[in-house]
Amino acid sequence: MVQKVAVIGAGISGLTSIKACLDEGLEPTCFESSQDIGGLWRYKETPEPGRANIYQSVVINSSKEMMAFSDFPPPADLPNNMHHSELMQYVRLYADAFKALPHIRFQTTVVSLRRTPDFSTTGQWEVETEEDGGRRETRVFDAVMVCSGHFTHPHLPLSDFPGIESFEGRYFHSWSYRNPEGLQDKRVVVIGIGNSGGDLAVEISRVAEKVYLSTRTGAWVVGRVGDGGLPGDLIWISRLSILMMKLFPWWMNRNLEKKLNMAFDHKLYGLKPNHGFFTRIPLVNDDLPARIISGRVKIKPNVKEFRGSSVVFADGSVLDQVDVVVFATGYDYSFSFLPKDLQAKSGHRLRLYKHVFPPTLTPPTLAVVGFIHGFGAINALSEMQGRWATRVFKGFLTLPSEKNMLKEIENDTKVMHGRYNCTQRNPLQVDYVPYLDSLAGLVGVRPNILWFLIKDPRLALQLFLGPCTPYQYRLTGPGQWAGARQAILTQWERVVQPFRTRVVPEPEPRWSRPWRISVAFSGAVLLCCAVCSKEQLLSFWAS
Amino acid sequence: MVQKVAVIGAGISGLTSIKACLDEGLEPTCFESSQDIGGLWRYKETPEPGRANIYQSVVINSSKEMMAFSDFPPPADLPNNMHHSELMQYVRLYADAFKALPHIRFQTTVVSLRRTPDFSTTGQWEVETEEDGGRRETRVFDAVMVCSGHFTHPHLPLSDFPGIESFEGRYFHSWSYRNPEGLQDKRVVVIGIGNSGGDLAVEISRVAEKVYLSTRTGAWVVGRVGDGGLPGDLIWISRLSILMMKLFPWWMNRNLEKKLNMAFDHKLYGLKPNHGFFTRIPLVNDDLPARIISGRVKIKPNVKEFRGSSVVFADGSVLDQVDVVVFATGYDYSFSFLPKDLQAKSGHRLRLYKHVFPPTLTPPTLAVVGFIHGFGAINALSEMQGRWATRVFKGFLTLPSEKNMLKEIENDTKVMHGRYNCTQRNPLQVDYVPYLDSLAGLVGVRPNILWFLIKDPRLALQLFLGPCTPYQYRLTGPGQWAGARQAILTQWERVVQPFRTRVVPEPEPRWSRPWRISVAFSGAVLLCCAVCSKEQLLSFWAS
Repeated sequence: MVQKVAVIGAGISGLTSIKACLDEGLEPTCFESSQDIGGLWRYKETPEPGRANIYQSVVINSSKEMMAFSDFPPPADLPNNMHHSELMQYVRLYADAFKALPHIRFQTTVVSLRRTPDFSTTGQWEVETEEDGGRRETRVFDAVMVCSGHFTHPHLPLSDFPGIESFEGRYFHSWSYRNPEGLQDKRVVVIGIGNSGGDLAVEISRVAEKVYLSTRTGAWVVGRVGDGGLPGDLIWISRLSILMMKLFPWWMNRNLEKKLNMAFDHKLYGLKPNHGFFTRIPLVNDDLPARIISGRVKIKPNVKEFRGSSVVFADGSVLDQVDVVVFATGYDYSFSFLPKDLQAKSGHRLRLYKHVFPPTLTPPTLAVVGFIHGFGAINALSEMQGRWATRVFKGFLTLPSEKNMLKEIENDTKVMHGRYNCTQRNPLQVDYVPYLDSLAGLVGVRPNILWFLIKDPRLALQLFLGPCTPYQYRLTGPGQWAGARQAILTQWERVVQPFRTRVVPEPEPRWSRPWRISVAFSGAVLLCCAVCSKEQLLSFWAS
Repeated sequence: MVQKVAVIGAGISGLTSIKACLDEGLEPTCFESSQDIGGLWRYKETPEPGRANIYQSVVINSSKEMMAFSDFPPPADLPNNMHHSELMQYVRLYADAFKALPHIRFQTTVVSLRRTPDFSTTGQWEVETEEDGGRRETRVFDAVMVCSGHFTHPHLPLSDFPGIESFEGRYFHSWSYRNPEGLQDKRVVVIGIGNSGGDLAVEISRVAEKVYLSTRTGAWVVGRVGDGGLPGDLIWISRLSILMMKLFPWWMNRNLEKKLNMAFDHKLYGLKPNHGFFTRIPLVNDDLPARIISGRVKIKPNVKEFRGSSVVFADGSVLDQVDVVVFATGYDYSFSFLPKDLQAKSGHRLRLYKHVFPPTLTPPTLAVVGFIHGFGAINALSEMQGRWATRVFKGFLTLPSEKNMLKEIENDTKVMHGRYNCTQRNPLQVDYVPYLDSLAGLVGVRPNILWFLIKDPRLALQLFLGPCTPYQYRLTGPGQWAGARQAILTQWERVVQPFRTRVVPEPEPRWSRPWRISVAFSGAVLLCCAVCSKEQLLSFWAS
């Protein structure tokens, strides 16, 4: 019977895992190698090796309601897209509210993780830790939750760039970037158009002579500011959108791309990728188009080679006197302290059942939490994984047979590699809401929209037409939270609140805009019902 | 007979005036108090009293084709919205191409301007100058063109802010701002939502703890990036739009505001003004919405008073521990070296016939150039004023009687004060294209669209449906330029060129997008023709 759980890391995933343990009556002990919680989101003045890092100006891509902890809505006054310092405020409030801190041993690093000799019967683990002072300790735990994140090991593919050894300027990985200090009036090449590459190019271009953003693939660019100024993710991530995507994937993709090209023609701007919008995480950047039209950022193709201080691009163009190159080339994934046999891969992905459980491990007393990407915030994903894992630890839920798990993983890998542009650098993609729903179904907390439509139609409309915020998974079942309904019905108020710093006269009902959007969505759903058969709809809800 | 012309100032207006003089065979002598050309656009490391200033990061609001000199298109490679350093490159090319520099006496300030005793017969002026070394000189000129600009005297309305003397932080006018250095982690209040206020709030917010942008009126916000990523002003400033505005002003205003609110709801964002879009120059800012949604900039109402380090706003809210206040409160207009009787006002405006000639001065040998604002770049306005003024100096054109000029000025003031939200700070508004057309009509260079429709339909379509770029005024009449037609037909190529830094595969005709826009516009004009009588259209063209 699992009782003591080791949680490795006290970032978002670690904290939600601690809470999941406490909710299930388990005894978590969290080992955090640094002196504070927050993981990635704890800003570090200087880069700390082996840890995830952010730069000074980072603003969260997800909006606060989408990034909410499912039973702890963010304070209404916080902005919709929080600065990292504000996200940390919220994370601290969460950790305090659920009394997570007493369970964390700071400045304590997990150095190894071994199954006990009697693992096959007890499922226990020997966790060896080292405190900052050097004191080592080995303790036995009934289960382990690995929450150590995945932006920790910068990928610096120097061998892909012939002549880099001759480069006379300075180069560094985006991981070590803090602010544009020292880049004033420099000629800078940023390689890679992930979110870091986009952010850095834009920020550096405000002080540099010029920034050249080099990309092999191009990217679709979306803003945080969505239609009408509402957070874009609150508009796009809804059950209605998911249904539409399922029913009319080609049409949805085409319309979305058309919409993005209406904002600015991705081809004209040199950004148009060959991949469709939904096959790779888009670049979230509000400022890039204006930096391109003003020539402060120039989009360039892939770098072919370096020659002294010159950079040669794939189209043969040469840029001379380059001062600085920033490699925004992503991260390597490493779980070096996991036993070797649990580090097996499926395609580019770690071979984990639903991205959590190593399928070959019996009993299943090790869970990986937060090792995942989706078109949505990590909080809800980690929370749901933690809730599922702890229910499995407790024995309330059982996993399929190893064979079936392996089969499902292979199948899942095939589907995801086919649908998404999965690569070595970007292997962790999942369908955000469907993935959440699939785990929620296992845990028993997936909201039944049809049932709510009868019992509580107002709520049901919000669930289906409104943003798919994490509170939806606290309405029923284990871990149910009495405040969930109210949190959903008041989520637009918390969206509007931070804007109310200068109230424009000529009052109008506060709900007008979200309400109009809801009406538009209702229209769309009616249309969709008109064209789909009842069976299709039911099979979607049942899926 | 006018021959020698004194040009005061070597900014954009001074340079175009020198060229207008040379084109008419006049002998210009330009007095420039600094050591270089460019005026406002010459970046000064430290603010120079009595001169216009810009900050380090300034990017021009107008796109390059709209800001072009009418017979000197900008190099194709320059970005559409130039950084001030790139605009200076273009200005230097212009000055070199037309050999303006030999006519400029640098580091020479005009200290007084007096009519000669026999002015009524000769129209001559005594221009007293002082060189940087202190040497004074008085020379007689046949005419004077005043091109000294109007962003030279910061307006710092401290008396409107009770308690400012108790303010414990630092305050300064936006005129003296260069970059956000020293504002790291500060709590900053920016007062005023003109283009400077918007730019500074956004830029400072990238390093400050938080920026509060205080506005009494609110503002409509437009981006440089227009539909499809094309420069917004190229889409909006066309003869078709002007016609539509004339025929359906209310509908055009409503649609434009609706469109802007679709990008972000100005009311939700606390920015919605009480004035309509076309009654005041909008705020040009691509970044503000994203800064607001991320809470880095908070919009606040007008400041009521200061109390120590606290700022009290008109809605009663109080902001404590304010470190810095930036007054982006505009400029005072001063022509102190003009004879007193020529400084008379009409409403808030200087009493000038078509913003150029003092109506009481006979003979009309003094012209003010560039003392004007429009929804468009200053270059075309100044050029046209200079061309008109020199034709008047030469005697090719005559002005109406003093009485008629005064009457027209009064009428014009009444119309503009009625239509625009003219204030002490913002008195110089004109209708951009109609104003240009009216002067062009006097000079004899206004393009006759109907005539071109018969003679050169391809050009005519560009003239009417395409952007109203300054080349249109070089097609016929005095100062005609043989390259004008070609400049118009190739303007979209120069727009597209700077984007071609990474050519996306899958070729498509280069013209596809502008062409689609032209087709859309053609559709609109057909619609408009269908609903308007022929007489209305003809009266517009004849007006």
